Amino acid sequence: MIVKKGIDVCFSPALYDKFHNKESIVVIVDILRATSAICTAFMNGVKTIIPVETLEEAKKYKSKGYLVAAERDGIIKSFADFGNSPFNFTKEKVAGKVIVYSTTNGTRSIHMAKKSCKIVIGSYLNIDALSDCLVNENHNIVILCAGWKDKFNLEDTLFAGCLADKLLHSGHFETICDSTYAAMDLWSVAKNDLMGYIEKTAQRNRLKKNNLDDVIDFCHRTNLSDIVPVWHKNRLIRLVN
Amino acid sequence: MIVKKGIDVCFSPALYDKFHNKESIVVIVDILRATSAICTAFMNGVKTIIPVETLEEAKKYKSKGYLVAAERDGIIKSFADFGNSPFNFTKEKVAGKVIVYSTTNGTRSIHMAKKSCKIVIGSYLNIDALSDCLVNENHNIVILCAGWKDKFNLEDTLFAGCLADKLLHSGHFETICDSTYAAMDLWSVAKNDLMGYIEKTAQRNRLKKNNLDDVIDFCHRTNLSDIVPVWHKNRLIRLVN
Repeated sequence: MIVKKGIDVCFSPALYDKFHNKESIVVIVDILRATSAICTAFMNGVKTIIPVETLEEAKKYKSKGYLVAAERDGIIKSFADFGNSPFNFTKEKVAGKVIVYSTTNGTRSIHMAKKSCKIVIGSYLNIDALSDCLVNENHNIVILCAGWKDKFNLEDTLFAGCLADKLLHSGHFETICDSTYAAMDLWSVAKNDLMGYIEKTAQRNRLKKNNLDDVIDFCHRTNLSDIVPVWHKNRLIRLVN
Repeated sequence: MIVKKGIDVCFSPALYDKFHNKESIVVIVDILRATSAICTAFMNGVKTIIPVETLEEAKKYKSKGYLVAAERDGIIKSFADFGNSPFNFTKEKVAGKVIVYSTTNGTRSIHMAKKSCKIVIGSYLNIDALSDCLVNENHNIVILCAGWKDKFNLEDTLFAGCLADKLLHSGHFETICDSTYAAMDLWSVAKNDLMGYIEKTAQRNRLKKNNLDDVIDFCHRTNLSDIVPVWHKNRLIRLVN
């Protein structure tokens, strides 16, 4: 008999303390754009990403000669080498490099989950590799949506629903979590016209306003990468099974 | 030209500080069971309800001779006259009376919203009267879901979606809030078989475990009452337009 593992979806970093369990694996989700950018960087050969919470930390690393990606509210900070668009993290720029990274929502969520058993980075770009990795682990899962400044957002929730759906279909998981059911039902509403659904999200409109919405389609493409970035000794590295 | 008013849905009391605005009207929602019970009490002629946050306060009122309704985790407290089931608040028991009330999630949410422009109590039992009242007011709306111990729950979210849908259809409201879209989409998934959908919620299972699920059907009946309970001088009274 398979002992099924649990799935919880946490809709906001501000609710994470209700879900924290040091035995759970936490999947960090910030589809537009931090976790999609991180997965792109690994796909393009980055060696390590050091997520930092504050711009002050990011600046300190910059002064020591590190490559730094930093944005707030979608806009690249003037001292940084690049911002938060996955298109910045090209092979030419990142292969073999160490990058320091600070974003509005995503990197903060990573730091919140530090006391869990493992932190992995989720996006559509690596969703099947991620799902396989979670199936093979013997732990409950918390899918932590980075949201927008502690508010619920649709794009992270849809991804959570898509991933939860895959995990439940594997036969290795179960859930009694209302947020997980909600995420899966929203995914079922949106999945047949995902780009049409995303039109109404607040983040799509924020990005459009700043001419940064060119990445939305890319951030919803599946399985361009089979790499699962994982937190290890205060940085993100490629998971080696 | 109608200047449209905004609608936000807040999925948890723990997120309320992101939505608080002293110019907004807050609709408190705790379908299973606090706000359904409050609406039932007013329907049956209660004069006033005094919501209190702590059991200590409730006990003090009891010692002064007040009728007290108090529960935690669904179970009536031994010192109280009754618990949180709408079926407790019969005409015989409550008509003309003042009741002190303390529950796990609902009364706390009422107290959190005290600094808003107005607090009203929402349930399916009074949904059309509530919607009419909100259409006639010149304020933005925050629908505050009481949730379960600061976690998201489905039953409050479905009601929020149903109410938001009605308000948007009135032509007097608009929204740019992802939680509001999510609540409306979940409502659209659930509405044709609401009792079937509610089967999977955590609260339905909690109530069933304690043989308290007899109220679920009643709490989803619409428009048994045309009374909107409103916060006024630290108590709930019947709104007089």
